[in-house]
Amino acid sequence: MTSKWEELAADKRTRINESIPEEWRIKELPAGDCFFDFPAKSGLLSDQEISITESSATDLVQQLAHGDLKAVDVTIAFCKRAALAHQLVNCCLEFFPEMAIAQAKELDAYFEEHKKPVGPLHGLPISLKDQLRVKGLETSMGYVSWLGKYDTTESVLVTLLRKAGAVFYTKTSVPQTLMVCETVNNIIGRTLNPRNKNWSCGGSSGGEGAMVGIRGGVIGVGTDIGGSIRVPSAFNFLYGIRPSHGRMPYAKMANSMEGQETVHSVVGPMAHSAADLRLFLTSVLEQEPWKYDSKVVPLPWRSTEEEAIKSKIQDGLNLGYYSCDGVVFPHPPILRGIETVVSTLKSNGHTVVPWTPYKHSFGHDLVNDIYAADGNTDVFKDINASGEPSIPNIRDLLNPDKEPIDMNQLWDTHLKKWNYQSEYLEKWRELEERQGKELDAIIAPITATAAIRHNQFRYYGYASVINLLDFTSVVVPVTFADKKLDAKNDGYQPLSELDATVQAEYDPEAYHGAPVAVQVVGRRLSEERTLAIAEEIGRLLGNSVTP
Amino acid sequence: MTSKWEELAADKRTRINESIPEEWRIKELPAGDCFFDFPAKSGLLSDQEISITESSATDLVQQLAHGDLKAVDVTIAFCKRAALAHQLVNCCLEFFPEMAIAQAKELDAYFEEHKKPVGPLHGLPISLKDQLRVKGLETSMGYVSWLGKYDTTESVLVTLLRKAGAVFYTKTSVPQTLMVCETVNNIIGRTLNPRNKNWSCGGSSGGEGAMVGIRGGVIGVGTDIGGSIRVPSAFNFLYGIRPSHGRMPYAKMANSMEGQETVHSVVGPMAHSAADLRLFLTSVLEQEPWKYDSKVVPLPWRSTEEEAIKSKIQDGLNLGYYSCDGVVFPHPPILRGIETVVSTLKSNGHTVVPWTPYKHSFGHDLVNDIYAADGNTDVFKDINASGEPSIPNIRDLLNPDKEPIDMNQLWDTHLKKWNYQSEYLEKWRELEERQGKELDAIIAPITATAAIRHNQFRYYGYASVINLLDFTSVVVPVTFADKKLDAKNDGYQPLSELDATVQAEYDPEAYHGAPVAVQVVGRRLSEERTLAIAEEIGRLLGNSVTP
Repeated sequence: MTSKWEELAADKRTRINESIPEEWRIKELPAGDCFFDFPAKSGLLSDQEISITESSATDLVQQLAHGDLKAVDVTIAFCKRAALAHQLVNCCLEFFPEMAIAQAKELDAYFEEHKKPVGPLHGLPISLKDQLRVKGLETSMGYVSWLGKYDTTESVLVTLLRKAGAVFYTKTSVPQTLMVCETVNNIIGRTLNPRNKNWSCGGSSGGEGAMVGIRGGVIGVGTDIGGSIRVPSAFNFLYGIRPSHGRMPYAKMANSMEGQETVHSVVGPMAHSAADLRLFLTSVLEQEPWKYDSKVVPLPWRSTEEEAIKSKIQDGLNLGYYSCDGVVFPHPPILRGIETVVSTLKSNGHTVVPWTPYKHSFGHDLVNDIYAADGNTDVFKDINASGEPSIPNIRDLLNPDKEPIDMNQLWDTHLKKWNYQSEYLEKWRELEERQGKELDAIIAPITATAAIRHNQFRYYGYASVINLLDFTSVVVPVTFADKKLDAKNDGYQPLSELDATVQAEYDPEAYHGAPVAVQVVGRRLSEERTLAIAEEIGRLLGNSVTP
Repeated sequence: MTSKWEELAADKRTRINESIPEEWRIKELPAGDCFFDFPAKSGLLSDQEISITESSATDLVQQLAHGDLKAVDVTIAFCKRAALAHQLVNCCLEFFPEMAIAQAKELDAYFEEHKKPVGPLHGLPISLKDQLRVKGLETSMGYVSWLGKYDTTESVLVTLLRKAGAVFYTKTSVPQTLMVCETVNNIIGRTLNPRNKNWSCGGSSGGEGAMVGIRGGVIGVGTDIGGSIRVPSAFNFLYGIRPSHGRMPYAKMANSMEGQETVHSVVGPMAHSAADLRLFLTSVLEQEPWKYDSKVVPLPWRSTEEEAIKSKIQDGLNLGYYSCDGVVFPHPPILRGIETVVSTLKSNGHTVVPWTPYKHSFGHDLVNDIYAADGNTDVFKDINASGEPSIPNIRDLLNPDKEPIDMNQLWDTHLKKWNYQSEYLEKWRELEERQGKELDAIIAPITATAAIRHNQFRYYGYASVINLLDFTSVVVPVTFADKKLDAKNDGYQPLSELDATVQAEYDPEAYHGAPVAVQVVGRRLSEERTLAIAEEIGRLLGNSVTP
């Protein structure tokens, strides 16, 4: 017998499928594990549609602003490719091409009348994680119990992107609770990695990772409280930025554990180039988000900070790096990723020195305690409200019987966090004092593994400690796991049971071809500098624009 | 019989008294209620010492930087006047002239050798509220149970002020718990208002207010979670700024309810002019506090923002104002203060329009709930640890049996706060849209009363709602209560019991001469603009430099 929650989920799946016009349906799914190249070869997209969807956002907005492309054509192209993406990798929780095309037509009419774009993103489709509220649409966020709730207000970021001229057409899938780095829920099931259906697309912004990865979107909006922008960026060979808290507007977005403010979730873009990330950030900042969302710092885009880095690039950047955080040792492809970045930088005249990760084990434990401060009450309330079961990652991770902490314990936790953050800054200053120059950023793994096999994501610390520190972090795609180059690390003495489990997961054959990335970490609210450094690293690697 | 806590407090009082050299002792306290003019007439200060202590900080640092004054002379002058201040109004919890003079001698030696100052505050004595930690000194913060704890670390702000060249010589008194706007504790008792011993000096930075008010200090460092910089600034006819959270470094300071982060206490200066406030802020920001304290936003002083206001001053500022927040009606002197500012601005070509306070009653209740989130556990733990009783203001204000809220209730509170803040911004934008121009700041009361009689401070809402909003606020001294001009508001129909109580406290005779101020409120992190506007208002009022 089908239970009530299963009926609700099935109904939602039907509604999503029905939102795809007949002519955009794939008659027969491709064989094999990789769907990555299918859209361009499917015969369902015109040459112009392929060309549009494989352009950069930076190019598209230029053509749109000059009237060389129509918003409606760009919108249809991405809607079609997104429809294919969903059929291939199961990445949409909402798909609304009609609303998108209507919006695009209005933009075209505006352009026709005024001979100018409405804003810097005029006519550009932007894909949204299903935490962003759009009036009239459902925000289920992967909880069955949230189905049927239609938004009557709009997230501030949606309003501002709309003001900048962006078009909305899809809201992408997330894992139940948002608190894990794979993307599975009981509504639509699992979102797959377009490059190999046996690998995770990452999470929690995994729908965005898969969608933008397969170019059903050119810029996707994700959120990150413990890696949720960076992990799917890494697993899909994308650029992604976790801005520091207060840079981008989060107001009126849905969230898990809404109101939890000890470690803030932040919102940011995922794209195929650093330039497209910058386009997103500058376009939002032009709308003065601090006048809408009280948590946004009144900090327009600082070109002077970018210029400072460009000038440093001439003289040689000064960077730190680490391969292992002292808690879990990365798989061989990740170690090679770090080595590749370090040696590339060095051979281009930059200084790269070892960075000693400061008490990451402590940081990892602290941030986990923060996530569970309410004894996981909030997330289990939303899971249990429909009777749906927990997804496997949550069963591994969260204890439904955990005791909440009290107010004074929370305040102690705040102090621990603040002290840890300030001690980390002290280490940063100490290195600068020893070197007699500024430390521009730190290169580090973002996960211990390349794009991971399903249900295997165990260790969040490479990502989550950066959230605890609230440092700005930009993911740069580096390379792909290679069974010839990345031999198993035989005889490795694990640091812990967790370390052993993660290490045992490595299989050169199974991971062959999986995307490998690093993160470039800057101090808090250093988006301009850190992105400029990430862009230069991508350029040196030959990955300025990713496939 | 004397109890243990009384012995500890008496011992501390003895130690403070013994820190005052014999030759700086007042032989006979002056008669009457007003001590304000005593120091200059006491015969205990030389003409040069009077001149130094009645200079602006901006002038002093210039003279010190040019070698026209020696740090040791400036330091001794302020130490002597501070010693008089303490004997008159009972404002010091720590007084350490020997350490100060030693520090000043080092600075003079540095100047002698290098022919330049160590930093922008070279040789300037700065008075510290007893939350700032200085190595080797006690931080009791007004709790008997904290006596005997000597600091082994230093607050980040102290470190950075020291780097900038500041000299430390006193830590001033605070009320038990810091959570009230008068200054009484069981260690040294009550701090008095130098202008009239029957009036409060305000609180919680009341020691600073009294000390700087009587020019025992030129710049004082206060903190503000619900008016604690602004109220003593107002009650002592001083300028004071409550920067938004994240502008000035608070790390490693002592605090009540340490780790409470729903509404942050912030640290900022109190002084006799807006220029001296600016000197403090720019000097601290030059030390790049964001590299030391993770909570500080990397935002150097933005002169461009000041220039923008200066240019607007030419064309006419656009300001809002309100006289009553809809909860408690101010006393006649405060109403006249607002009217004076509004009419002065208008007659100088500026636009001043009514601002409708948005849900201040809600904001006032919400912030009070936040202060008491732990059921007042933290503050009563520190009170009860020694057996000392609660001070009268605390007995009025805090319920020791209050139930703490749980984590999910706290998260709901965070959401309420965020929504309220964002709605307030919406109101701000709406007015701007109606007017078709930027709203530069809002003029408002900071308290319902002029400098208040002891134990009468009942309503914190004019201050605390601004803390909830985290808006930048600058206090501008306006005028003095005048029994001839400020008649009792007969026949007033109170809005509530609280309103009636506050209104009943007004007595034209008793308040005659009490300082009256307004606050100038700008959006979050608008220190440059809001201070520039406050400065202009002070200039128009003829109060650029206060007596």
